[in-house]
Amino acid sequence: MTAILLSSCPDAKGVVARVTGFLHTYGANLIHADHHADLAEKASFLRLEWEVEGFSLDAESFRAAFSPIAASMEMTWSLHFSSHKPKVGILVSRQDHCLVDLLHRFSIQELSGTVCFVAGNHPDAKPMVEHYGIPWYDLAAKAGDESAKAESESVVLEKIRHEGVELIVLARYMQVLSGGFLTESAAPVINIHHSFLPAFKGGRPYHQAWERGVKIIGATAHYVTQDLDEGPIIGQDVVRVSHSDTVEDLVRKGRDLEKLVISRAVRLHLSHRIIRHRNRTVVFD
Amino acid sequence: MTAILLSSCPDAKGVVARVTGFLHTYGANLIHADHHADLAEKASFLRLEWEVEGFSLDAESFRAAFSPIAASMEMTWSLHFSSHKPKVGILVSRQDHCLVDLLHRFSIQELSGTVCFVAGNHPDAKPMVEHYGIPWYDLAAKAGDESAKAESESVVLEKIRHEGVELIVLARYMQVLSGGFLTESAAPVINIHHSFLPAFKGGRPYHQAWERGVKIIGATAHYVTQDLDEGPIIGQDVVRVSHSDTVEDLVRKGRDLEKLVISRAVRLHLSHRIIRHRNRTVVFD
Amino acid sequence: MTAILLSSCPDAKGVVARVTGFLHTYGANLIHADHHADLAEKASFLRLEWEVEGFSLDAESFRAAFSPIAASMEMTWSLHFSSHKPKVGILVSRQDHCLVDLLHRFSIQELSGTVCFVAGNHPDAKPMVEHYGIPWYDLAAKAGDESAKAESESVVLEKIRHEGVELIVLARYMQVLSGGFLTESAAPVINIHHSFLPAFKGGRPYHQAWERGVKIIGATAHYVTQDLDEGPIIGQDVVRVSHSDTVEDLVRKGRDLEKLVISRAVRLHLSHRIIRHRNRTVVFD
Amino acid sequence: MTAILLSSCPDAKGVVARVTGFLHTYGANLIHADHHADLAEKASFLRLEWEVEGFSLDAESFRAAFSPIAASMEMTWSLHFSSHKPKVGILVSRQDHCLVDLLHRFSIQELSGTVCFVAGNHPDAKPMVEHYGIPWYDLAAKAGDESAKAESESVVLEKIRHEGVELIVLARYMQVLSGGFLTESAAPVINIHHSFLPAFKGGRPYHQAWERGVKIIGATAHYVTQDLDEGPIIGQDVVRVSHSDTVEDLVRKGRDLEKLVISRAVRLHLSHRIIRHRNRTVVFD
Repeated sequence: MTAILLSSCPDAKGVVARVTGFLHTYGANLIHADHHADLAEKASFLRLEWEVEGFSLDAESFRAAFSPIAASMEMTWSLHFSSHKPKVGILVSRQDHCLVDLLHRFSIQELSGTVCFVAGNHPDAKPMVEHYGIPWYDLAAKAGDESAKAESESVVLEKIRHEGVELIVLARYMQVLSGGFLTESAAPVINIHHSFLPAFKGGRPYHQAWERGVKIIGATAHYVTQDLDEGPIIGQDVVRVSHSDTVEDLVRKGRDLEKLVISRAVRLHLSHRIIRHRNRTVVFD
Repeated sequence: MTAILLSSCPDAKGVVARVTGFLHTYGANLIHADHHADLAEKASFLRLEWEVEGFSLDAESFRAAFSPIAASMEMTWSLHFSSHKPKVGILVSRQDHCLVDLLHRFSIQELSGTVCFVAGNHPDAKPMVEHYGIPWYDLAAKAGDESAKAESESVVLEKIRHEGVELIVLARYMQVLSGGFLTESAAPVINIHHSFLPAFKGGRPYHQAWERGVKIIGATAHYVTQDLDEGPIIGQDVVRVSHSDTVEDLVRKGRDLEKLVISRAVRLHLSHRIIRHRNRTVVFD
Repeated sequence: MTAILLSSCPDAKGVVARVTGFLHTYGANLIHADHHADLAEKASFLRLEWEVEGFSLDAESFRAAFSPIAASMEMTWSLHFSSHKPKVGILVSRQDHCLVDLLHRFSIQELSGTVCFVAGNHPDAKPMVEHYGIPWYDLAAKAGDESAKAESESVVLEKIRHEGVELIVLARYMQVLSGGFLTESAAPVINIHHSFLPAFKGGRPYHQAWERGVKIIGATAHYVTQDLDEGPIIGQDVVRVSHSDTVEDLVRKGRDLEKLVISRAVRLHLSHRIIRHRNRTVVFD
Repeated sequence: MTAILLSSCPDAKGVVARVTGFLHTYGANLIHADHHADLAEKASFLRLEWEVEGFSLDAESFRAAFSPIAASMEMTWSLHFSSHKPKVGILVSRQDHCLVDLLHRFSIQELSGTVCFVAGNHPDAKPMVEHYGIPWYDLAAKAGDESAKAESESVVLEKIRHEGVELIVLARYMQVLSGGFLTESAAPVINIHHSFLPAFKGGRPYHQAWERGVKIIGATAHYVTQDLDEGPIIGQDVVRVSHSDTVEDLVRKGRDLEKLVISRAVRLHLSHRIIRHRNRTVVFD
C-alpha cells in the first residue's frame, strides 16, 4: 500500500529537496519520484509515491504538517492512497467496444477502481453490463432533442452525486455534454475522440480522414472542457492506413486505437499519474 | 532491367485480364502486379512491372499497340523503364538535414536518379553539395520580398528547363512557390511539411504542437499544389513526445521524421509507385 | 457476396494473365487482385476476389473448368466464398483477455465466422463464454500429466469432428498440443506467443525479456506445427518498455499486444488473405 | 550551463532527500530530477541536473563535500558538466550510412562532443570524413587475419590514448574487438547490431530474419562487452516488413533503423542519461 503526492508550484529553488526532506522526516520509503520543471511556463511538477508502512502521518496529520510548507511555495497539491478504489461512472452510445474492453480491464484489476454504473442512450450494451453485475441506466438523449438531453444529464448527475463518483468516462458517448453538467458533476470527465486531435475535430472524423487521404489515423483521449474537442490531451496513438482502406476499414482499425488510448488514459488517471496545467497535461508514466 | 506501367481508368470488368493479357501476348515476364479498385470512386489503378528481356515491344511500339486498348477503357497511363535515371532538382533553405540525407541516399543508389542541381537561399549547404560534385545555385528569395522571390523562381525554372528536370524536391525550402512557377515548371514537386497534416498547417508547426499539448508529432510528404499544405499526401510518420519535451526537442525529433518521410516519398516517386487521383494518392509499396 | 481464389505455383510467364483471363471469360467483376512473385523461391502467389453476381460458375463447375489450367501450371489453389462463415473452436487457459476480445469481435461481425465451442483447462472464462451463448467444455489438461492431456485432446478432437471445425485458435492456451492431435485435427491451428519470435522462445518470455533488458517487447501469431514456436509467422507487433517497467508491467503491456496480434491473424485467416509456403506466409492485407 | 550527477546505490530510505538536500544547501537550482528504484534489484538510481550559476561548489569541492555522504549510502556516482564536450572516436567498415549521419549530427551540434578521429578498414568514407576536417586512419583489419586485427587495434588504441577519447562508437564496424582492446581502451564502446537482439545474433542478421519469415525487423544499440552481442542494451527500434520485401529491402529499411538507433544511443550517452547496472541500462530520457 502506497501514498501518492501530486503537486504543482511556481519554479523555485529547493522544491524537490523540501518536499522529499519533509517526507523523509516522517519516515517515508520513497518508491517513485518524478519531477518536471517546465522552463517555458516557469512551473514545477512533482509526483512522489512512498510506502504507507513506516510513514508516521495519516491523511489528516499530513494536511496539518504539509500545508504551511506548500503554502510557502504557492503549491497546489493532492494526496492519494493506493488502497482507495475510486468510483467510476461510464457513459456509452451504440458502439460498445471501448466499454466492453474497459469492463474486462476493471474485472481483472488492471484498472484500479469500482464501476458504479453505466448509462447509455442505446440498449445494446445492457446485457454485458449486467453480466458484470453493474447497474445500467437507460438515457433518453438523442441528437437534436434538448429536453431529452437535459433529462439524461439530470439522471446521470443524480447517480454521480448518490454514488460519490470521482471519474466519468465517455466510452464513445456521442452526445455533447452541456456546460451545466460539467460544472455540476464536479468529477473530471475523460473522453475518447476518434482522430489525432487537433486534426478532424467534430463529427465523422474517419470520413474526414478518408477524404483528405491521410496515411495515418489516430485517436485521442482528453479531459472534457466546455470547448468541444479542445480539452487537455492525455494520450494519443496512431495506426497506418493506405489507399486500399475504405472508410469501414478506418472505422475497424480505429476501434483498436480507441480501446487502447482510452484505457491507458483511465489507468493513468486512476493511478494518479496526471497533473493538469492550463490546457496541457504532465503525465508521469 | 524492367518496364513499369502505371494506369488509372473507370472501373470495368476485365481491366486486369485485358492488360496482363496484352503484356503476355508480347512475352512479358511479370514480376510485380499491383491492382487497386476504389469502389467509392469507381476507379481502377494498376501497376505492372515486367522484365524488358524477352518482351518484344519498345517504348514506341508499345504506345502504338497499347493505345487503342487503353482508349477503349478510358485509361490514363504511363510507361517507365528502370534503366532511365530521372533528373532531380532540389531546393533548400537554412536547415540542411533533409538535403544531406537525400544526397547520401542518391550517392549509394538507394534513390535511383541524378541530382542535377541544388539551389538555396542560405549558403550553409553549399560545401556539402559541392563535395558530391553537384552544381549549387544561390537564390535571393527571402520572406516578404516578392521581386527576390520572382527572380529566384526564374533562376530555378531556367535550370529545370535546361536540364530537363523531371522531379523537384523541396528539402525544407521555406519559401512558398508561386502558382506561375508550378504551372511553368511542369515537373511534379514534392514537399515535406513538419506536421501530421492536416493538423498544424502553415508556419511554426512545432510551436503550434507544443502549445496544443499533443502527445504525438508527425511529418507529411505531399505533392505541391496551388493550395498551400493541401496537396495529395504521399506519406506520413509520427513520433511520441511528452510534457518533458521542449519546442527544441520537438524540432530535434522532427528532423528524424522529416528525413525519413521525404526520402521515402522520393523513393516511391522515382520507382514509379505512386498514382495521383484527384487529391489522393495510390501508393503501391 | 464475393468469391476468393488463393493460389501458389512455380514462377512462369503468363500466370496472372491466364488466371484473370479465365475469370474474365466467365464474367467475373474483379474487386481485388494481389500478386506476389518470390524471386528467391521462384514461386508465384495470387489472391483474386470477385463478385459472385454475374459470374457464371458455381464451386463445382469452377473446379471442372479451372483444374486443367491449374494443373498445367502446377498450381495449388483453393476457392472460398464470403457467404460461408467458417466454424471456429477456441482453446484457453487461465488468462482470458484474448478470448474475451475475440468473442466481442465475432459478436460485432468484425471477425467473420462462427465460434462453435470454447474449451479450457481453467473455469474462469466459462461465464463469459456462456454469456455469448457458446458451448463451453472443461479440459483436464495440466502440466506434467500426460494422461490428462491425452484425454483433453480427445475431447477437443471429438468436438472438432462433430462440428466440422475449420480453424482452431489457441487464445493463450498454455498446454503444448501433441503431434498426434495436430495430425488428426486436420484444421489449421493459430497460436499467440508472447514474444517477438524468434527471441524468447519457450516459457516465461516476459521474464526472459526483463532479464535481458530489452527496450521493446512483442507478440507473435503463428500457425502451430510440430516444432514448438517454429511455425510460420502470420503477424507480429511490439511496444516500447523501459527500465521503469517491472515484469508485471511487461505482462500488462503484453496483454494489449497479444489481443491485437491474435485477432488480426484470425481476421486475415478467415478473410482468406494468407498463403502458407514452406515455413513462411504470404499475407495479402 | 548545467551540472549533472549520476548515481546508483542500494535502496534505502532518504536517498532522494539527502542528495537533493545536499544540492539545495549549496544553492543548486534543479532543472531535472529523475529517480528510479528497482525493487527487484533493490537499487536506487538518480540523475540530477542543475544550473552551475548560483551553485557554490566546483568539481573538486563537490567531491570533497559529497564523498562522505555518498560513502554512507554505498553510492557509485559521477559528476558531469554540460560545458565539457566529450572526445569521441568512430570506427567504420564499408557501409558508411551511420557514419555520415553521425557526422552531420555532430556538425549541427545535435550531438554534444568532438569527433577526434574516424578509423576504418575500407577507404570509401575517407573523403566525407575529411570534408568535415576530421582525421582519418586506415585500418588493416580483415576477416580471419589475426595479425592485421591486432595491428589495427593497436593503431586505434594509440589514438584513443593520445586524444583522451571518452567514447568509442562502432558505426557498422564489422570486426569483433578483442578482449584486450576493450580492457586497455578504458572508454565505453557503443555498437549498433542490425537486429532486435537477442534475436538473430551473429552474422548476416537480415538474411536470418528473411529465412525465419518475421514480420518486423529491428536494430539494437548496446555497450560492447567481452560477450559478443550480449552487452547492455541502450535502445532498440523496429520497422514492419512483409512477404514482398527481399533481403535487399530488409537491408535498405534496416539502414534507417540503424542510423536512428545508434544516434539516439550516442546522444543519450553524451548527455549523461544512461546508468549501467549489471547487464542492463537505466535510461533517463
